[in-house]
Amino acid sequence: MHIVITGGAGFIGKKLAATLLASDGIELQGMPKRRLDRLTLFDVVEADGLPADQRLQVRAGDITNADQVRALIDDNVDAVFHLAAIVSANAEADFDLGVAVNLDGTRHVLEACRHLGSSPRVIFASSVAVYGGHMPKMGHDDMWLNPQTSYGAQKAAGELLVNDYSRKGFVDGRALRLPTIVVRPGKPNKAASTFASSIIREPLAGEPAICPVSRDSVMYILSPRRVVEAFVHALTLPGDIFGPARMLTLPGISVSIGEVEAALARVAGRHVADRIEWKPDDHIQRIVSGWLPAFDAVRAKSMGFAADETIDEIIHAHIEDELGGEIR
Amino acid sequence: MHIVITGGAGFIGKKLAATLLASDGIELQGMPKRRLDRLTLFDVVEADGLPADQRLQVRAGDITNADQVRALIDDNVDAVFHLAAIVSANAEADFDLGVAVNLDGTRHVLEACRHLGSSPRVIFASSVAVYGGHMPKMGHDDMWLNPQTSYGAQKAAGELLVNDYSRKGFVDGRALRLPTIVVRPGKPNKAASTFASSIIREPLAGEPAICPVSRDSVMYILSPRRVVEAFVHALTLPGDIFGPARMLTLPGISVSIGEVEAALARVAGRHVADRIEWKPDDHIQRIVSGWLPAFDAVRAKSMGFAADETIDEIIHAHIEDELGGEIR
Repeated sequence: MHIVITGGAGFIGKKLAATLLASDGIELQGMPKRRLDRLTLFDVVEADGLPADQRLQVRAGDITNADQVRALIDDNVDAVFHLAAIVSANAEADFDLGVAVNLDGTRHVLEACRHLGSSPRVIFASSVAVYGGHMPKMGHDDMWLNPQTSYGAQKAAGELLVNDYSRKGFVDGRALRLPTIVVRPGKPNKAASTFASSIIREPLAGEPAICPVSRDSVMYILSPRRVVEAFVHALTLPGDIFGPARMLTLPGISVSIGEVEAALARVAGRHVADRIEWKPDDHIQRIVSGWLPAFDAVRAKSMGFAADETIDEIIHAHIEDELGGEIR
Repeated sequence: MHIVITGGAGFIGKKLAATLLASDGIELQGMPKRRLDRLTLFDVVEADGLPADQRLQVRAGDITNADQVRALIDDNVDAVFHLAAIVSANAEADFDLGVAVNLDGTRHVLEACRHLGSSPRVIFASSVAVYGGHMPKMGHDDMWLNPQTSYGAQKAAGELLVNDYSRKGFVDGRALRLPTIVVRPGKPNKAASTFASSIIREPLAGEPAICPVSRDSVMYILSPRRVVEAFVHALTLPGDIFGPARMLTLPGISVSIGEVEAALARVAGRHVADRIEWKPDDHIQRIVSGWLPAFDAVRAKSMGFAADETIDEIIHAHIEDELGGEIR
């Protein structure tokens, strides 16, 4: 089996790659387990920091270049995780780049897969940013999409294409709408949500972090561990389980920023939680207040997708996975 | 004022053109009434059958050609009605053509308008084909989009772009989701819904028509008169009335095919209604059964859009507008 991950140098792409390489084969439901023969990570830069493995190939390239994407997705490809994207604040600042990567890049991946004639599995990373406008307190599976960012609009358009390409039999697609991923490892990025990880990650590493929103702000989140689990699970599920809609909002948990602070104090001590500096930023507060605070992910749960149990569990997982179990 | 109509050789484009030319000026709400100085109809063929008028310009061209669209939408353009499209069955049969016209053509129009820097009004013809999958008996304004045709998927993606381009201030857009238009004049087209007009139009013209669906099949319809009214109304409304969603499902009426037959007998006589030949077609029946049967268009009605009163009114309007008042 040959699997391609676009956006493979990102932290989710790399964690997903490590998980796939460590597995003893991949069992697509209803089919015998198959060995992973080849795993190709594609990104603007070559992915680094991965275990040495003969099956692994890292490639640098441009998802907006249809020819490069066609060359990437060769005849032996069985599945593509399409994670390459321009994040929210960046897509908002550079509209044309967002369209080129998030919409046309997705079209290039779908077209390359269609060209194979083998209807490969395509797992598309979408986002709860597809929701927006007048938002209920609790989202539900048949809620309409009214994105209020270019990123969300491009992801929503991508989902529609994944669904239509699947309906036509060109690909066997699945689009997962990701909650805000917390705790992202590494450095802050250009997403408006970046503080949600910073206020946990930096204090645990002995550094201060700025929180630009109020303690009663609520976010719908999922941990890196669970999102990787969800991607692998989405790969294995048979397509017909999705019925007429290949798009799916993943289960997450709803936590207020105050609860994040309290959990950090419980897990790591008050002095760690006190490393959060509260500096309200009206602009970011307004953006975050427009986000979906909670979602009743009935459909995804019925298909075997799972959220984290608690914010404490998410913090513990970060300490284990990223800090070698050690808090500064 | 200079207005462009893409798909201007289609029957709605031409009726809209005639209405705009006959008006004594166009009053955008909150602004003084302005004269229509120029009206350009763009289509794959030159629009014919229109009143001689110095303000009218007909152009043949290709909406999939970005340069042609850029040349069409010049600096003086104040508003664009974007009606050019590949219809449902055609977009289903020729996937690439559907994408090129319905998705990329729409992008060309939006980009050309953005390039002007004047945020012109764009009225985009979308469709209730954006709905699909598990459908309620009565649609509502915040129902999710799950198109089950390529046409519907492309229109839904177009709406998302219209909304995002409007949010960014690149255009002042409005996307109207049209019910099935009944009675379409002229000949049957490649839409699966074409029979809905044929079973009225052909009998009134003294000819037989085949009905491929059962009498209890229900359709959500709007007349050509009302859809032209809706387009003109959408042009005049201020953009901020739409709030965070520039897409809107138009009011229509729900009628069963049996009611259409009964109305035809009432209006034109039993012998006319008897010109309908009932030849069930499982394929078309399945398609029609998947369509939205009814919609509670609260939002559009609150904004001043109106449906026809009855199917009888729709038939009378067709006799007046297309048959010179005469039934064969």
